[in-house]
Amino acid sequence: MLGTVLHAPGDIRCEEVEDPQILHPTDAIIKLSASCICGSDLWPYRGLQPMNQPMHMGHEYCGVVVEVGSAVRTVKPGQFVVGSFCLSDNTCPHCRFGFQSSCEQREFMSRAQAPYARVPLADGTLVATPEMPADDLIPSLLAASDVLGTGWYAADAARVQPGSTAVVVGDGAVGLMGVLAAKQMGADRIIAMSRHKTRQDLALEFGATDIVSERGDAGVARVKELTGNVGAESVLECVGTQESMTQAMNCARPGGNIGFVGVPHGVQLDGQGLFFAQKSLLGGPAPVRRFLPHLMDLVLKREINPGRVFDLTVPLEDVAEGYRAMDERRAIKTLLRV
Amino acid sequence: MLGTVLHAPGDIRCEEVEDPQILHPTDAIIKLSASCICGSDLWPYRGLQPMNQPMHMGHEYCGVVVEVGSAVRTVKPGQFVVGSFCLSDNTCPHCRFGFQSSCEQREFMSRAQAPYARVPLADGTLVATPEMPADDLIPSLLAASDVLGTGWYAADAARVQPGSTAVVVGDGAVGLMGVLAAKQMGADRIIAMSRHKTRQDLALEFGATDIVSERGDAGVARVKELTGNVGAESVLECVGTQESMTQAMNCARPGGNIGFVGVPHGVQLDGQGLFFAQKSLLGGPAPVRRFLPHLMDLVLKREINPGRVFDLTVPLEDVAEGYRAMDERRAIKTLLRV
Repeated sequence: MLGTVLHAPGDIRCEEVEDPQILHPTDAIIKLSASCICGSDLWPYRGLQPMNQPMHMGHEYCGVVVEVGSAVRTVKPGQFVVGSFCLSDNTCPHCRFGFQSSCEQREFMSRAQAPYARVPLADGTLVATPEMPADDLIPSLLAASDVLGTGWYAADAARVQPGSTAVVVGDGAVGLMGVLAAKQMGADRIIAMSRHKTRQDLALEFGATDIVSERGDAGVARVKELTGNVGAESVLECVGTQESMTQAMNCARPGGNIGFVGVPHGVQLDGQGLFFAQKSLLGGPAPVRRFLPHLMDLVLKREINPGRVFDLTVPLEDVAEGYRAMDERRAIKTLLRV
Repeated sequence: MLGTVLHAPGDIRCEEVEDPQILHPTDAIIKLSASCICGSDLWPYRGLQPMNQPMHMGHEYCGVVVEVGSAVRTVKPGQFVVGSFCLSDNTCPHCRFGFQSSCEQREFMSRAQAPYARVPLADGTLVATPEMPADDLIPSLLAASDVLGTGWYAADAARVQPGSTAVVVGDGAVGLMGVLAAKQMGADRIIAMSRHKTRQDLALEFGATDIVSERGDAGVARVKELTGNVGAESVLECVGTQESMTQAMNCARPGGNIGFVGVPHGVQLDGQGLFFAQKSLLGGPAPVRRFLPHLMDLVLKREINPGRVFDLTVPLEDVAEGYRAMDERRAIKTLLRV
């Protein structure tokens, strides 16, 4: 079959790869309904993450089960399923505590930019829909696999409460999903920090009440101005740079909570600074599996439309254009027809 | 009057100082019932914190109001009061949010190792008892001013829940108060990390269920062993060094919460490490004022006995011996008769 392989920074190709096979009795093979490119795929694409050998790309997926290993009990061929980018057994103490992304057996999904994929730990990882979903819901169900679940976790880790104020740092796909999540969790005021018109518009569509286009100190000053010089109860950090983390810290009020989901690259935190700032920090790879049944339900009931975050669709063969468009910020997120 | 002045590292003296006076209409003057030495006083005493000039020491206090400024409304001469080491107006947005230690008007108490002290922001800071407390309760009421309130905040920031497991890193006075707080908050299991017999004994008296005498990686391994290889939901970091912070991080389970109240000295946190550890961090100077009415009530009802943490009492004149004893870890915490 065809699959995407990153050979070197900037060199992503769609090429012949091996068909996935059941390797362990807990595996399932799915036929993907669609795949997509993640903001985190851009780190190695941009050469900002070391790579020693060609990488098979793709960790967001949904589709129909075509084969299961002998130990799989909860899903069967013919079912439509969504799974998290973090594979988990959903039975270990960390999973039961709601942190499936720290599962004792955790693996990260890969090779999902392809028509078929192997999903390890299928019982713990996959959630089936009651029936085959309508085609137009596929982008939103695919979003639940990572980008929506990650934005949701940012809001959860930032402890967004009904009636509260949330600031979202980062207007990438995850940040936009963070806006949607904060809205669903009842935030009264959602301040999206974005300099790009199309992203600002989507943020407003997802529930943002205010747009701040300034960055850094000027952005913080504007947030303070909007919050009576107090800062926000909740800040969702959805980028992962030192600058964005500093901005997030400074937008939160003392006692406020920062949920950080952008994988930190070169971020250092000074203990004493963090102490006197008196702000709560929780981050990490999102435990999407915890939220997945709820998110899928919201999508199936058409209460949310996270699939709107895909503003470019290309066939798998044109994956290079999909990466380029995201790298150049011409596209927010690229859907791959597989 | 007499007061304590740190002239240089290791050089603490009891000497003639100016009597305190009302400087602002919001000030009160109190006659201290007792004073004491804080673990944080040891940072400058040990030369681990820069000092440019002689420092008047002491920030823990309780006693009887002798004079109030013209704007003071909630306390009056003759009342017994306790106040936080953080002075706050208790009306600004940060105070109302429960983070009085980030009050817009925050000041830190000083010059309280003396018979009399000026308390700025008296209305916001001081809490009066319904009647004059019994003499034997003075050490416990004094403890509420900082050491108990700080241990309590460590447990609060670590989000100790009924039935949960809490680890306390640090067997200084604050750590021991953290044990007491975790017990009051209903932790089922309280693991105190301590190598010193007298401190271990006091930890057990305050509610510790397990003692771990190992430190560093060995200590973490022992905590893991005691928690089914999972780690604790809550960790109270009560030291402030890189080693203790690392130990605290590694004792918490993924999704667990670390409350850190030891003022960090030279602590750096790697963003990516924090991300993948997936542990929540909240620290800072304790908002003791939030807890003060409850803590004083517990003391007055004799439900807790935090004053037990004072294992050395010296007259103010012998303050140098009080510092030495704590510096050499011969004393957990020194009470000063003023």
